[in-house]
Amino acid sequence: MSDVLQTILSHKSVRSFTSEQLSGEQIRELVSAAQAASTSSFLQAYSIIGVSDPLVKKELSTYAGSQKYVVKNGHFFVFCADFYRHKEMASNLRADISETIQGTEALLIGTIDASLAAQNLAIAAESMGLGICYIGGLRNNLAGVSASLGVPAHVLPLFGIAVGYPEKVSEKKPRLPFESVYHENRYNVDKGMLNAQLEEYDRTIQAYYVERPDNSRETTWTEQATDKLRIPKRVYMKDFITQKGWAKH
Amino acid sequence: MSDVLQTILSHKSVRSFTSEQLSGEQIRELVSAAQAASTSSFLQAYSIIGVSDPLVKKELSTYAGSQKYVVKNGHFFVFCADFYRHKEMASNLRADISETIQGTEALLIGTIDASLAAQNLAIAAESMGLGICYIGGLRNNLAGVSASLGVPAHVLPLFGIAVGYPEKVSEKKPRLPFESVYHENRYNVDKGMLNAQLEEYDRTIQAYYVERPDNSRETTWTEQATDKLRIPKRVYMKDFITQKGWAKH
Repeated sequence: MSDVLQTILSHKSVRSFTSEQLSGEQIRELVSAAQAASTSSFLQAYSIIGVSDPLVKKELSTYAGSQKYVVKNGHFFVFCADFYRHKEMASNLRADISETIQGTEALLIGTIDASLAAQNLAIAAESMGLGICYIGGLRNNLAGVSASLGVPAHVLPLFGIAVGYPEKVSEKKPRLPFESVYHENRYNVDKGMLNAQLEEYDRTIQAYYVERPDNSRETTWTEQATDKLRIPKRVYMKDFITQKGWAKH
Repeated sequence: MSDVLQTILSHKSVRSFTSEQLSGEQIRELVSAAQAASTSSFLQAYSIIGVSDPLVKKELSTYAGSQKYVVKNGHFFVFCADFYRHKEMASNLRADISETIQGTEALLIGTIDASLAAQNLAIAAESMGLGICYIGGLRNNLAGVSASLGVPAHVLPLFGIAVGYPEKVSEKKPRLPFESVYHENRYNVDKGMLNAQLEEYDRTIQAYYVERPDNSRETTWTEQATDKLRIPKRVYMKDFITQKGWAKH
């Protein structure tokens, strides 16, 4: 197996980092890796805000649910959908692009562009012996996050990635069976087959949770995932993004 | 430089493939790589539809703007945001998750999950000597794509990736300057600085387009990107996704 596949397949989130900081060179290398990802229509509709200031980290951590690893890490990256640049350059060219960048399609473009770049950064970091953890918890309070990072109109923070030298590495979590995620030519809506796969997977996940050394517990994937979805979270999202000029139409 | 960084930094889209098909083993390897990516709250809210049927490929290609490489490739993958599984398993557990999965937050979760998985697949493919091209053009007609792939409610196709053995490799396109994409601690809204960076980048891109052997042309990045954004595209998107039960609130 190639080094690349090895790196990708060995991914485990790291939720405990030493306090050693990334060097400027490492940050540049990681951002170059992020920028090498494909981007929709070559629009490059995203930005990355690197956070090293402990006060800013503390604020972000509070919004995200006070996880220690948002503060204690080697560097914290925030990925944003971004049409601020485009707005500025269109204005230089006396073009009006406001309709386009306020569309739902623009939200998808920015979100996909930012995510592809982020995953490149994640893989690059892991290949350098660093650990990573995605922080979707920033979306608990995007108004707060936007204020902390001083983002202008047309910039939407989506998630963070904590990067650093691992103090403790988590176990690798087994994923859904191949057949549950991959469909051939047509989406397979066979519920009997899906339920059989989920039962098998529930046994795998149950064993994983019982056996893992830290934070051992008794649950299945279907129970755990269903519990996470029972009560809607971040219900302010639509109003927030619309008010900020995203997905207006 | 590590093999991983080398692979990531050498990415170039491939728009011309031989007709050699991927093996079942290669497809499994690529999907395993995709599944190894991080996923929001361990929800795994995405699916991949692999398309080998020439008739289905032809349909998708028509929706996407009749690009030849959507038909002629080694395999075509469609990435979807997906809460169909969750809906089914919640119903088994007699839980109602419909409010959550119809939220704008669920759209973001599914889009980010699908994109992280896709980028893992892209990097894995390139490490195996294959070429890739993202096909956002599927979003020209998501109703058509959804029908062709038979996707049920709570599954939203987002984009495709054509994968295969390269017949011709494109040039590597220079990206925005580091300073235009990366901000330290706070978003830098200095317009003078941004414009100086864009001017420099425009010169780089102009030289790239003039010098590249195929499809040489005379344009800058700011002109080209602004032109792409002048007329709103895919303006049906909000109505479509809302009608399909996404981002209702």
